[in-house]
Amino acid sequence: MSYAVGDTYEYTFKFSQADVVVFAQLTGDDNPLHLDPEYAATTIFKRPIIHGMLGASVFTKIIGTQFPGHGSIYMGQTFEFLRPMYVDVDYKAVFKIQSVNNERHTAEILGEVMDAQTLKMTTRGVATLMNRTHF
Amino acid sequence: MSYAVGDTYEYTFKFSQADVVVFAQLTGDDNPLHLDPEYAATTIFKRPIIHGMLGASVFTKIIGTQFPGHGSIYMGQTFEFLRPMYVDVDYKAVFKIQSVNNERHTAEILGEVMDAQTLKMTTRGVATLMNRTHF
Repeated sequence: MSYAVGDTYEYTFKFSQADVVVFAQLTGDDNPLHLDPEYAATTIFKRPIIHGMLGASVFTKIIGTQFPGHGSIYMGQTFEFLRPMYVDVDYKAVFKIQSVNNERHTAEILGEVMDAQTLKMTTRGVATLMNRTHF
Repeated sequence: MSYAVGDTYEYTFKFSQADVVVFAQLTGDDNPLHLDPEYAATTIFKRPIIHGMLGASVFTKIIGTQFPGHGSIYMGQTFEFLRPMYVDVDYKAVFKIQSVNNERHTAEILGEVMDAQTLKMTTRGVATLMNRTHF
């Protein structure tokens, strides 16, 4: 299947505090902002927030397995972390193909992650990738 | 401790295939390029490569725990994935403060990740962050 400019994909997801702990152990990022409710209470967020890069991992999940899917090779990514993300909250990712180069088999995909209920955007970014099957 | 433009930080790290499996399970990115040696053998990489976003997680680890450290709030990040990264290979991350805004307590930090032996660059990017203690 080939994808074209303007094609979109939506995906809803959430992370648990157990996921946050796994991410902290895997990456070594034990920033207390993510792990310590007492510390987080002293910050502007009031309670622990998900690592921005954990929330943003939905980009690699979607690109690598769903849109366009297996075989994707990541070439670049930008992220703006606009609002904090919390555990046990449903987030909606909306992805849209912005450009395709069929000779190079590359594409740029805009991804926007938002609270599934309020639709307030938490993370936005553009992925650049190669996929010889789909572009 | 306050940091200033030009300050640098170096950190050496590696990931195991077990780490790749944990990342795949945590994020849902089970792209066979990272998990299936037979599939990977059919690609230009010849063997499984680490998820770009797993290799890039060294950015959140360094920024969140070491340079500048705890309390960092991620505002943005760019990544260029220049070369594949493999398990059980030592990589060196070299981080350098590019700009500081002491009124807003924000900074931009350039990070370059390279093979620790060949010094060939695998990932490069700029983190934008706030840290009220260190900037």
